[in-house]
Amino acid sequence: MKTLEQFPELSPASIADAMDRIKSVVNQTPVMTSSTLNELVGGEIFLKCENFQKIGAFKFRGAYHALSKLDADQAAKGVIAHSSGNHAQGVALAAKMLGIKATIVMPEDSTPVKMEATAGYGATVVKSTADARERVSAELAEKHEYTLIHPYDNSDIILGQGTAAWELFEEVGELDYLFAPTGGGGLLSGTALATAAKCPSCKVVGVEPVSGDDAGRSWRSGSVVELEKSPKTIADGVRTRFIGDRNLAVMSRYVSDMTTATERQILEALQFVWARMKIVVEPSSALALAPILSGDYQINGGRVGIIISGGNVNVPGCGFFH
Amino acid sequence: MKTLEQFPELSPASIADAMDRIKSVVNQTPVMTSSTLNELVGGEIFLKCENFQKIGAFKFRGAYHALSKLDADQAAKGVIAHSSGNHAQGVALAAKMLGIKATIVMPEDSTPVKMEATAGYGATVVKSTADARERVSAELAEKHEYTLIHPYDNSDIILGQGTAAWELFEEVGELDYLFAPTGGGGLLSGTALATAAKCPSCKVVGVEPVSGDDAGRSWRSGSVVELEKSPKTIADGVRTRFIGDRNLAVMSRYVSDMTTATERQILEALQFVWARMKIVVEPSSALALAPILSGDYQINGGRVGIIISGGNVNVPGCGFFH
Repeated sequence: MKTLEQFPELSPASIADAMDRIKSVVNQTPVMTSSTLNELVGGEIFLKCENFQKIGAFKFRGAYHALSKLDADQAAKGVIAHSSGNHAQGVALAAKMLGIKATIVMPEDSTPVKMEATAGYGATVVKSTADARERVSAELAEKHEYTLIHPYDNSDIILGQGTAAWELFEEVGELDYLFAPTGGGGLLSGTALATAAKCPSCKVVGVEPVSGDDAGRSWRSGSVVELEKSPKTIADGVRTRFIGDRNLAVMSRYVSDMTTATERQILEALQFVWARMKIVVEPSSALALAPILSGDYQINGGRVGIIISGGNVNVPGCGFFH
Repeated sequence: MKTLEQFPELSPASIADAMDRIKSVVNQTPVMTSSTLNELVGGEIFLKCENFQKIGAFKFRGAYHALSKLDADQAAKGVIAHSSGNHAQGVALAAKMLGIKATIVMPEDSTPVKMEATAGYGATVVKSTADARERVSAELAEKHEYTLIHPYDNSDIILGQGTAAWELFEEVGELDYLFAPTGGGGLLSGTALATAAKCPSCKVVGVEPVSGDDAGRSWRSGSVVELEKSPKTIADGVRTRFIGDRNLAVMSRYVSDMTTATERQILEALQFVWARMKIVVEPSSALALAPILSGDYQINGGRVGIIISGGNVNVPGCGFFH
């Protein structure tokens, strides 16, 4: 297992530098509350609404941060990323804003509208099978000297994602708990670093679908656990098979707990947020609220932050919400 | 035609009194913007988000205001209202908060979940056919000495609804245009009074579905035009057959223009707001944005307010969003 000492750049204090670097371009997203929700769960819940972020998701934060730190030579040669979702659009938009050439390797079964959205930001979209996309990305990176922007096992991505939690603490003050959805661990590890800097007494909790609890098992065992297959879950933003070394190193030091939610609990949380709070969030965001709303995770009347990761969803009859 | 002189209580200055009366109980709803939207329409658009109001719609403002002005005898005897939608819930919640007995006459084909929501606020729900509901309400009102709270042809309702626009001007300053969806005219007439008080140079525009343009025809002709049937439109909040005398009197003095949107334009505006702005709004709210988003109504680079009336919608597979 790699330890945090091997990644000295991943310090709580570094989130402040990331914030300084990106704050003029990211949306300072609002925090939303609901008295109905507070009564239901017996606590004070604060939703940090990254569904209102550029590209509709927190992924823009990390992507912009990582691309803004490239040196002149790297920026001139361009970047490559593989993603079927929000990371693709985050890298594409950040690259466009910074005048950097971007190539995005997307699964060939991505919905046309997602590919169009990514291409719409000026990125070159390369189709690949899901299995081959890492290899295809690596080959293109080597051939063209592109810098590979990993979606979560990348220190600058992690630090960028952590700025959402940093903003949240500035907006609402101290919290007792902070919940984040967990796929590859980029958001969770960034959130944990920001919390260590801004409110060390706050417990950071990562949430996974029951069908994909590899991050929790990795956190408990101290080494990265790999799933055989992508988890089957409605929460499409967290269908990763394993977390990264950097993510686990941060989580081992700064994450207080890992928990899970069932598909039914995720759906119920999704419907609550859409129907009662009137905001469009993606299933991965509802995932972070689900353990609290279901009552499975007791928050003991505390002040609780939830990172609402984004709002990019498919709605039958309405198309893709990007 | 009745003129505004017959309703001296309907003065622009009276909105300030309504605001004072209800401001401690209504949500001061946020104003949302979208750089994508501004670019698309060539102007600066401000959405006043009453979907985040109590009961999920502006109707709470008027209902609370009207009920709070009842005298002790009226309050002791109780109120009655007929509505299939947001007015029912507005009156029910306001009555509960003020300790007043409320009876709501609802069409017998209302969805069970809407009836449950209304009953959930403690109101007595009476089922009726759509045709008979006015008669049923009047009979019950006479028998029990209930005060009838009309959904729009009621001065205190109008003044309460106007507080949304009042807040909007306090939040964003002067505007060139302010658009409001128009059914019975309660929201539009209140909005026009608030605008006359806060920003008399701002043009107030009412929007109706093409299939139900009675308010526009009434405003043009100077007398109330009655449709034979409720208009067929996705915008269920504006399926009224005629506006009220008080509404027309205010509109004749203070509304600058009336326009319409097609069903397709309403749907496109609805999808835009859900998909790009990530907020859940009802079709009647999208109606007010539709003429601008479609390009049919030119705003000439101006600063434009839109009253987003609410966010209570049926979504197939997700149930009723109340």
